[in-house]
Amino acid sequence: MSCLILLCTAIWVCAPISSALDQVVQKKTYTQDEFVLVSGQKLVGVKVGYETYGQLNASGDNAILICHFFSGDSHAAGKYAADDKVPGYWDSIIGPGKALDTDRYFVISSDTLCNLNTKNPTVVTTGPASIDPKTGKPYGMSFPMVTIRDFVNLQYELVKSLGVKKLAAVAGASMGGLQTFQWAAAYPDFVERAIPVISTPRVHGWLLGWLDLWGMPIMSDPKWNAGDYYDTDGPIQGLSNALKIVTLSAFWTGWAENCCDRKWSDKEGSPYAAMPNTFLIDNALETRARDRAKLADANSMLYLVKANTLFDLADQAGSMEQAFKSMKAKVLMIGADTDMLFPPSQIKAYLEPMTNAGLSASYFEINTGNGHLGGILDIAQAQEVISKFMSQ
Amino acid sequence: MSCLILLCTAIWVCAPISSALDQVVQKKTYTQDEFVLVSGQKLVGVKVGYETYGQLNASGDNAILICHFFSGDSHAAGKYAADDKVPGYWDSIIGPGKALDTDRYFVISSDTLCNLNTKNPTVVTTGPASIDPKTGKPYGMSFPMVTIRDFVNLQYELVKSLGVKKLAAVAGASMGGLQTFQWAAAYPDFVERAIPVISTPRVHGWLLGWLDLWGMPIMSDPKWNAGDYYDTDGPIQGLSNALKIVTLSAFWTGWAENCCDRKWSDKEGSPYAAMPNTFLIDNALETRARDRAKLADANSMLYLVKANTLFDLADQAGSMEQAFKSMKAKVLMIGADTDMLFPPSQIKAYLEPMTNAGLSASYFEINTGNGHLGGILDIAQAQEVISKFMSQ
Repeated sequence: MSCLILLCTAIWVCAPISSALDQVVQKKTYTQDEFVLVSGQKLVGVKVGYETYGQLNASGDNAILICHFFSGDSHAAGKYAADDKVPGYWDSIIGPGKALDTDRYFVISSDTLCNLNTKNPTVVTTGPASIDPKTGKPYGMSFPMVTIRDFVNLQYELVKSLGVKKLAAVAGASMGGLQTFQWAAAYPDFVERAIPVISTPRVHGWLLGWLDLWGMPIMSDPKWNAGDYYDTDGPIQGLSNALKIVTLSAFWTGWAENCCDRKWSDKEGSPYAAMPNTFLIDNALETRARDRAKLADANSMLYLVKANTLFDLADQAGSMEQAFKSMKAKVLMIGADTDMLFPPSQIKAYLEPMTNAGLSASYFEINTGNGHLGGILDIAQAQEVISKFMSQ
Repeated sequence: MSCLILLCTAIWVCAPISSALDQVVQKKTYTQDEFVLVSGQKLVGVKVGYETYGQLNASGDNAILICHFFSGDSHAAGKYAADDKVPGYWDSIIGPGKALDTDRYFVISSDTLCNLNTKNPTVVTTGPASIDPKTGKPYGMSFPMVTIRDFVNLQYELVKSLGVKKLAAVAGASMGGLQTFQWAAAYPDFVERAIPVISTPRVHGWLLGWLDLWGMPIMSDPKWNAGDYYDTDGPIQGLSNALKIVTLSAFWTGWAENCCDRKWSDKEGSPYAAMPNTFLIDNALETRARDRAKLADANSMLYLVKANTLFDLADQAGSMEQAFKSMKAKVLMIGADTDMLFPPSQIKAYLEPMTNAGLSASYFEINTGNGHLGGILDIAQAQEVISKFMSQ
């Protein structure tokens, strides 16, 4: 709930300088009979959802692709119905006259393979919860391992199918930023600009540690049953615990102070009076995690964790220098000053190597009490810098 | 293991400017037949361990009390045997000629009630794993709720029993810092100086969230069994998972980069090759947590979590202003720049209110890649500022 409030605040802040995307958006589905993963394994009947805002021009070169974050989906802007309480997560920068101007650009936002929220009716994805055509049952942990590169390769097929000849920009936050870096490295002639937000071109050891903790509660839940749980309730407790860790590690002090400070969960039940009486933040984390767990799939979370851990452009190219030399896109990196998952110090350290490799690279920092999620909730701060970057 | 290496580094850095405490120290035991908690409940046959370094003077006013952190114990300096691999955790600032100079001061370091490491033979504590004399069985969750104030009240009895008339200083890191603040507020005429390190005079909402996550894996483990597990192996998995979260949230990027970066757990088993193949940091977290879990007690952890959540001098005094007005000690607060549990911004915010309340208050910041644990591993950076503070 607090996140919704914060999101509204971010949108309100943005309101005076641009108008909301008043278009009612629809989730569409891209399907492909066969898709070959980087590992060589084949997936048949692949589906991913996507949304578009604005119109593609005749030359097919005014498209912008938005890649989503770990627990997100392709609903980046607009509303599915006029009375939706909140629009897509980056609505403050996507729309007529905004940084990613839908009067000028054709914005595409795509779901990834193994999207977390398989039970969200507006998410379309292919992953371990999908039916394996060979068995007629969900793949579970027999689903092949996927990588960020696979996400991007499938998006490449998707955008080509829409008539896109070139992407004016790829942008995304967090795991969306990993995809953005991957796009610039994998398809250098197809990407003019890259806007990786709260993200780095490799997942550092520190974040590997956090990703380990995000998967841990699922695999510790006996109901996970090595991923074979689709005929049961599944590891709801483990998944919910995992989402609690995701939530807190993605935030910062501001969120906790604003939502809860030292308020009690129950006005009558003083935490000072008894062991089980808790503070409001425990309740906020629990409620939020339980609500998110209802829409999510535990195995998909493990596949996403794995895909994130494997991301390193240096490993792919032999060195980071080689990776940067292979890229052609102009790069605008955006960090959040209180981000503890992708600390700004780690992001900024890539500026000099990028410039040395001949890239046009710049950095902007969001000032936020929301930590990592500042890259989503407070993205409106980057409105002007993104606008300028798009006109370069 | 990596922590040990870092600890050695910190000590080595300190070596040129002062000599190690070459004294072989002994754990001693303080016992009290009856101890009344703040709640009014009584504990009988209370025991806590303590260590001393240096000599008490005739007037009993050269004592310094060291309070330990959440997962620590009273082994703050020296070695139990000459061939111990590492000395106590703050050995770099406790010893002859050091900041807390054992040639001048009588340093006492005390275990708390409900110490986490009940299976560590050098820890002496009273908590849920202790035998309830009424039943002849461990208390479990029937142990009364305890607070930081209770820890301090028992330490007051301990130091009085040693002949101490006044404490020249109380110092401690993290939960030890909470105790330090509590000492200054509860016994204003007994405490001349307070050195709370990586700590604040109240536990903020943000840290309440982390404390919730630290307890979560234990209570989610079916083997916790509502705290009744002393005739079984107990919730080893849950406790180990909890200690993983403690470890990572107490560190920062530097630790992860130094210990592991993107190295693989197993040189043969590439994480790129299969889902179960992991990176070294997963292994480092697992090994460290398992080793720590062997010495720890799950219920004690829950009691410590609870005691920490309840700490707020403002709640005790009616307001923080009143709390500061009741204090007389000079205060030196020490933060760590990358601390995400007690961020420096939260610590520094108390400087002005302290000064406004008439207190002599100052702040020093440790520069570290070790996050919160910089307050322990890199405390040698504060050598000079503590020395000066002690001579004021």
